[in-house]
Amino acid sequence: MTGWVEKLDAAARSRGSLVCVGLDPDPRRMPVDDVFEFNRAIIDATRDLVCAYKPQLAFYEALGLDGLRALEKTVSHIRDVAPDAVLVGDCKRGDIGSTAAAYARAMFDVWDFDTVTLHAYLGRDSVEPFLERADRGALIVCRTSNPGAVELQDLELTGGGLEGTLYEHTARLASEWNTRGNVGIVVGATYPGEMAALRARHPDMPFLVPGVGAQGGDVAAASRAGVNADGRGVMISSSRGIIYASEDAATFAGAARRAAEALRDEINEALRSGATAAR
Amino acid sequence: MTGWVEKLDAAARSRGSLVCVGLDPDPRRMPVDDVFEFNRAIIDATRDLVCAYKPQLAFYEALGLDGLRALEKTVSHIRDVAPDAVLVGDCKRGDIGSTAAAYARAMFDVWDFDTVTLHAYLGRDSVEPFLERADRGALIVCRTSNPGAVELQDLELTGGGLEGTLYEHTARLASEWNTRGNVGIVVGATYPGEMAALRARHPDMPFLVPGVGAQGGDVAAASRAGVNADGRGVMISSSRGIIYASEDAATFAGAARRAAEALRDEINEALRSGATAAR
Repeated sequence: MTGWVEKLDAAARSRGSLVCVGLDPDPRRMPVDDVFEFNRAIIDATRDLVCAYKPQLAFYEALGLDGLRALEKTVSHIRDVAPDAVLVGDCKRGDIGSTAAAYARAMFDVWDFDTVTLHAYLGRDSVEPFLERADRGALIVCRTSNPGAVELQDLELTGGGLEGTLYEHTARLASEWNTRGNVGIVVGATYPGEMAALRARHPDMPFLVPGVGAQGGDVAAASRAGVNADGRGVMISSSRGIIYASEDAATFAGAARRAAEALRDEINEALRSGATAAR
Repeated sequence: MTGWVEKLDAAARSRGSLVCVGLDPDPRRMPVDDVFEFNRAIIDATRDLVCAYKPQLAFYEALGLDGLRALEKTVSHIRDVAPDAVLVGDCKRGDIGSTAAAYARAMFDVWDFDTVTLHAYLGRDSVEPFLERADRGALIVCRTSNPGAVELQDLELTGGGLEGTLYEHTARLASEWNTRGNVGIVVGATYPGEMAALRARHPDMPFLVPGVGAQGGDVAAASRAGVNADGRGVMISSSRGIIYASEDAATFAGAARRAAEALRDEINEALRSGATAAR
């Protein structure tokens, strides 16, 4: 059975793209009323340009049952028109074993995501139910791109032979838990130096890199820092910068396509011109 | 506007109970097929015995849209028959500000919870959208009762004037964020010594204490360690120990009532007999 990490590598190679499109539908910004119709237009306009789609669960939950019905149709549509794209459920769950097993059923069996984002704060048994599914897996939240990220993630550890920060230790745990090759980590684009250090220590784990576009991360620096030795293994994720590239009903799909294409090209150009510098 | 902390105090006082019933419907254990009918029977049988109900979102999400429809009806039923009980949404979300705002809309406006459990890993801006609602609030996950809890929560910190463990620092941050009096913390029942130390440092924040019953926490020790100076300020939460006290369709509601009553009495007896020892 092919796992999501292999699926990601195949999609990135065949499309020549490391772009992940975040599907965060917000009725206050969407130029059409219907969430599914909005997502479908974005997906149809970008499906040959990206290696992954990443619905953020919060935006569907905020719309109640109607929102979740739209999520169901969105996932199904991606499976139909872009079957080789990796489907990332950005849910950032994290709970004790029996509850984690219920979340794994929700994310994999109900919503059919290939992989999901998780918090590691409750330790291995909170992550294990997601990892024991050979064709699925998880991305552990290590380093985020928001202002409050430093408050806990940058704390310095001591004792037990440990040194370094909490986010570095979280990445180390993710790597230890990665006995089946289906674990990745989340590393925000706003810290390319830290990302490069994590990549040096964890050459094989895939990175999900949010924070380009609206959050201000430098695309070229993040791309060079995040790729593995094959020049892949990273999903550079943009949500608002692509899906709200235009907030006009007549032009938003075309604008999303151009924004995804521009991001793909910016990443690829950075990797071509900076391949040597990044090593 | 009355906040959830005042509501909890009033409910605990008027009912003479610190019991929170966790509503974690699992079709493999439920003696009736319908999730809402199951919850309704449990709620109707326990509503005079408890200060709070705590649906665990994972168990509803695992059942897809039908499960979430049952959650909607469950919350509405609690509002009808036990309007003074605190409604805790056990969702353990934790995401960047714009996403956190969407989760806050989901948890408060869609699901109508009084308070929710949150991860603090992304810092203050990930929690703020839940706290700026004067009548609502949050419980920050500090110390959990599962086997993997020690892997991150017990890490020792150093530098920046910090000492102690990660979970102690998380509690300290929760306390700093508690400028509106609507923040509590989650502390597992399996570590009463640590709970007592947290209570000494944080005399006013409410504690949500899962882990009694199926997870093996000592009720008397956890109750004595968790209460505030008024002998309240804590929700001792049991899920499986109450809702699956009997797995027989004819007897489960009565068995749940007896289990909730027994837990209420065990807590109250421990507080009466141990009031001096606990200080």
